[in-house]
Amino acid sequence: MSETDRRVVFTPSGRRGRFPAGTPLLKAARALGVDIDSVCGGRGLCGRCQIEVAEGDFAKHGLVSRADHLTAFNEVEARYAEKRGMKPGRRLSCQACLTGDAVIDVPAESQVHKQVVRKRAEVRDIQLDPAMRLHYVEVEEPDMHQPTGDLERLLKALAEQWGLTGLEECDLHTLQRLQTALREGGWKVTVAVHRGQRITAIWPGFHDRAYGLAVDVGSTTIAAHLCNLSTGEVVASGGVMNPQIRFGEDLMSRVSYVMMHPGGDAELTAAVREGLARLIGEVAEEAGVAVEEILNATLAGNPIMHHLLLGIDPTELGGAPFALATNSGMTLWASELDLVMNPDARVYILPCIAGHVGADTAGVILSEGPQLRDEISLIVDVGTNAEIVLGNKERLLAASSPTGPAFEGAQISGGQRAAPGAIERVRIDPVTLEPRFRIIGSELWSDEDGFAAEAAATGVTGICGSGIIEVVAEMYLAGILAGDGIIDGTAQGRSDRVQADGRTFSYLLHAGEPEIRITQNDVRQIQLAKAALYAGARLLMDRLGVDRVDRVVLAGAFGSHIDVKYAMVLGLIPDCDLAQVFSAGNAAGTGARIALLNQTARDEIQRIVRGVEKVETAVEPQFQAHFVEAMGIPHSTAAFPNLAKAVQLPEPRIATAAEPAEGRRRRRRRSGA
Amino acid sequence: MSETDRRVVFTPSGRRGRFPAGTPLLKAARALGVDIDSVCGGRGLCGRCQIEVAEGDFAKHGLVSRADHLTAFNEVEARYAEKRGMKPGRRLSCQACLTGDAVIDVPAESQVHKQVVRKRAEVRDIQLDPAMRLHYVEVEEPDMHQPTGDLERLLKALAEQWGLTGLEECDLHTLQRLQTALREGGWKVTVAVHRGQRITAIWPGFHDRAYGLAVDVGSTTIAAHLCNLSTGEVVASGGVMNPQIRFGEDLMSRVSYVMMHPGGDAELTAAVREGLARLIGEVAEEAGVAVEEILNATLAGNPIMHHLLLGIDPTELGGAPFALATNSGMTLWASELDLVMNPDARVYILPCIAGHVGADTAGVILSEGPQLRDEISLIVDVGTNAEIVLGNKERLLAASSPTGPAFEGAQISGGQRAAPGAIERVRIDPVTLEPRFRIIGSELWSDEDGFAAEAAATGVTGICGSGIIEVVAEMYLAGILAGDGIIDGTAQGRSDRVQADGRTFSYLLHAGEPEIRITQNDVRQIQLAKAALYAGARLLMDRLGVDRVDRVVLAGAFGSHIDVKYAMVLGLIPDCDLAQVFSAGNAAGTGARIALLNQTARDEIQRIVRGVEKVETAVEPQFQAHFVEAMGIPHSTAAFPNLAKAVQLPEPRIATAAEPAEGRRRRRRRSGA
Repeated sequence: MSETDRRVVFTPSGRRGRFPAGTPLLKAARALGVDIDSVCGGRGLCGRCQIEVAEGDFAKHGLVSRADHLTAFNEVEARYAEKRGMKPGRRLSCQACLTGDAVIDVPAESQVHKQVVRKRAEVRDIQLDPAMRLHYVEVEEPDMHQPTGDLERLLKALAEQWGLTGLEECDLHTLQRLQTALREGGWKVTVAVHRGQRITAIWPGFHDRAYGLAVDVGSTTIAAHLCNLSTGEVVASGGVMNPQIRFGEDLMSRVSYVMMHPGGDAELTAAVREGLARLIGEVAEEAGVAVEEILNATLAGNPIMHHLLLGIDPTELGGAPFALATNSGMTLWASELDLVMNPDARVYILPCIAGHVGADTAGVILSEGPQLRDEISLIVDVGTNAEIVLGNKERLLAASSPTGPAFEGAQISGGQRAAPGAIERVRIDPVTLEPRFRIIGSELWSDEDGFAAEAAATGVTGICGSGIIEVVAEMYLAGILAGDGIIDGTAQGRSDRVQADGRTFSYLLHAGEPEIRITQNDVRQIQLAKAALYAGARLLMDRLGVDRVDRVVLAGAFGSHIDVKYAMVLGLIPDCDLAQVFSAGNAAGTGARIALLNQTARDEIQRIVRGVEKVETAVEPQFQAHFVEAMGIPHSTAAFPNLAKAVQLPEPRIATAAEPAEGRRRRRRRSGA
Repeated sequence: MSETDRRVVFTPSGRRGRFPAGTPLLKAARALGVDIDSVCGGRGLCGRCQIEVAEGDFAKHGLVSRADHLTAFNEVEARYAEKRGMKPGRRLSCQACLTGDAVIDVPAESQVHKQVVRKRAEVRDIQLDPAMRLHYVEVEEPDMHQPTGDLERLLKALAEQWGLTGLEECDLHTLQRLQTALREGGWKVTVAVHRGQRITAIWPGFHDRAYGLAVDVGSTTIAAHLCNLSTGEVVASGGVMNPQIRFGEDLMSRVSYVMMHPGGDAELTAAVREGLARLIGEVAEEAGVAVEEILNATLAGNPIMHHLLLGIDPTELGGAPFALATNSGMTLWASELDLVMNPDARVYILPCIAGHVGADTAGVILSEGPQLRDEISLIVDVGTNAEIVLGNKERLLAASSPTGPAFEGAQISGGQRAAPGAIERVRIDPVTLEPRFRIIGSELWSDEDGFAAEAAATGVTGICGSGIIEVVAEMYLAGILAGDGIIDGTAQGRSDRVQADGRTFSYLLHAGEPEIRITQNDVRQIQLAKAALYAGARLLMDRLGVDRVDRVVLAGAFGSHIDVKYAMVLGLIPDCDLAQVFSAGNAAGTGARIALLNQTARDEIQRIVRGVEKVETAVEPQFQAHFVEAMGIPHSTAAFPNLAKAVQLPEPRIATAAEPAEGRRRRRRRSGA
């Protein structure tokens, strides 16, 4: 240590050291391993390396820190501040040099591996570490006496200026643009490097715009977030209907279409790619981003969407043994999927887990991180199939359960998709049995003033998944429904909304046009669906050797709309402290966003997926037993202690004999199909 | 060692060992590191592992070898022999097991790394080790309880059955075909693996056809060899005119076209790719090979062809400092170059060396291997530019010299390309000065009976490069031409074929229609061209510090047509023992074939190219000095001792004063241009 060495402490990391007077702060930070960002490599162009001096007497560090213990604000900083703006007190750490002792605060936005904060408190933030990074470099000019190629001189500059020593050959489109970019930029260019391995884009001079797209390819909707890869910020979000819907509403009808029409897989592949391509155009336009600025995309989807997107015939997924073409994550060129982005943009597709448990579930796991917790999480993503993940840091299990489309409003007499006009909330007065409800598109209940006016735009068009859950649960809580799922004819005496309906009974929810009525068959459909979901969860719990879970996470659109209390009243999910039941929204999409913003998450999910224990419900006798048992509506406070604390459950009542037998026949047909 | 162990000796390798009775020979061979081929992995399908038993008392090995010291010819062998035929005495080493001691001969064609023999004795054979290899595998069927993907089970099988443990993700087209292939083949498939790293093609069941294409993309002609990757054999060869010719005869006129027409580079790229695509179709059809069976291609070409083929604007190559976009070899998908082969076929493009020294020269180096010899080789590939390589295992130097198009018949009064009807050989009677000649398309000399009849089909249409060399050299040897290149007017007295032609003289070679006359200007053009070539070679010799070379290799079409003696008489090349002057034919194409058949040659040439010392003739003052000096025709037996032994050189004669001055003016104009 020399007499002239200055002391510097970086916060919040606390890293400290001594450097000769005149050392640039960025250099000192790098020497100490302090995480400070830079795209321009210390040339005062990018402004990513901004810091602040903490002034004062820092007795614990044994130094006095002052703003004038750095060299004066210089021309480079003045030019940057004038051009791009800079908060008072900020300095560019590549320009400011130590002249005395200093405590330097590195604001969050100046850190390379900054945290991208998520809204939900219970989940971890995303550490920014994108697969595509920009690097500004200054390249040697060619020399006739040392005739190396322009590419080789660029690689040399990247090795020397950025330590990128392991770069492979360059992508062809980038090579085609290389010579022009170098000369237009006066031998200064910015390149995008994919995973520290390969140059995939080039711009003349300094370029600081890089975007990425995280996509959840659902059977119904394709949803995308366009993200700024430098900040992690979502700059635009959007969704389009999956154009495959014209080939069939649900997955199995699309697989059937493929099986029955030669070349059908190519049609379905073209349809989903076309929808995705349109979505990319839309979100890019919304954000004012050129599609060429989108350098990377990550995709999640169920196994059939995954295969069709990749152009793989999904026929094998339509029948046992439900063999996936691959259960690994894949990196492709966007152009291989006909997606228009930067010409050498890369697409990463999350791995599928099993024939029924897709890359969407891999995304859910990335988003929810059950493998990071001591507590046992049960995560369900409900669609036509419910994909179920159970476990903690010791073990993770996954299964898919054939819930059918009832939760999405299909096969329900008044059912419909969640859309304006659909009943989504229901309350039944336990005394009068009179209902009140809310529809999507209005904040008012049907018995509030102004509801009719608000509802006039759409009318009351039907009932969606969350509404069905609530009405059936409320019917049970109001004593209209017995624990075995039979609509109790004796309730006719309490309200004329309970009406005979052939040999069974129904409950009139809404008398308008269309009339919305909950029939015995509707209740049966919900029972079948919820029994499948519950049985899947129970089966995994058996395998894990637990009879309770610590947390429940409901993922997907359905999960974010239902009231968890009603879900538990009906027995969709096992008993759990209601404070530990979370709605995760589009967790598959969030998982895709994590894989977009953090490259190591790709390796992580690949590793996790390999370790997940897959349970195939279709061949598990225990699943059938759980299924039969779960047909009833829970009434045991012993089995549902947490629920019993939250809800006044009705007294157990005996079911009639005829109906359960009918239910058993149905099940037998179903499982034999 | 057990009592029951049997002794086995493999020839020609001489490897020996002891194995328990019942050990299959293939297994024993592999344990001993004996090089025996197999595609089917020992299942008796491919027949590649055939061996013969050497019968007799092998005293030196201490054993008696007999055919019946192996298990009997079995059903698998019988089925193979019936289906595909097998020479008497041959056995499949995967089926035949040791029952006693044996000496086993592994025929050349059963070796994995067999030698592909080249016709020329002085060059090394090609060791077969293609970048694309076929592997037959048996894959586990999917299991619902272990739901790995089909790809992952295939990778597992390749690791277990072939030791291919480092395989990456699979190409998308192959993944798309994977599930069908596995099921059609009953879980037995053959895959093509590229460089031991990546699956690039798949076929149901056993498949044993794999082809590759080696291409030399010349400015005038694109030439291709289609090779069987299992044997190295050339199954078809072909050539097409480079369709770029419509944009300009020579390279510089094409670069000018690009510079003057926006989008011109894309037109030229499309043209060369279209020509190449047509050629692929033609050679495949000729050989009866489906284009899908072509799995790999290697390409060589000069820097401008290299860049245009890759879709890189060649403008930078049109002026100093002649910067290449890249000087590395590249591996691409064939589809990236719009070439129709197997959908995931790979293309390898040899590295360029410098702005004027291309991937064709890299091919020439691979073919001729100067870096493997102690002797100093001078290799020249003559086109519009002569590319020159000089050196031995210590050092290699390369340069390009602007010979211009005279050697190709351009800028010569009666000149034309080498085509039927062109004069290619000339002799002049030293006494009468009467000429006789041969034309392309006829084996007869013009003074032989029947020549007129044979020539009638085409007529005598002009004179091509080799004809020009010979006639000028013969004029010199006959005393028509002085050592300074002046046509001697006094020779008019010896023959009326020497005629006044304005201020200079000419020699009438053929009096027909068209009349073919060698003018003073024609001689000058040849002098300029040969001086450039010689000066380039001399410059490299200076750099290497030698004043003689041990071998001369003439590559390219021109090199294979000229008579080296005449080339030396004119001083195209330095003096050398005529027995050590070789014609290499299309060595660039041969280099591409080597890179196709032997993958390590790709790494080798990359390494060599990096180490080559590049000399830029355009900026070397010494080049100008050599050029001026080389304008004359050699007459010093001291400088050309070898030539003097082979040819009766005329007495030195003094040149007139006027002409050399004119020649100097021309040179000054040229070098200033």
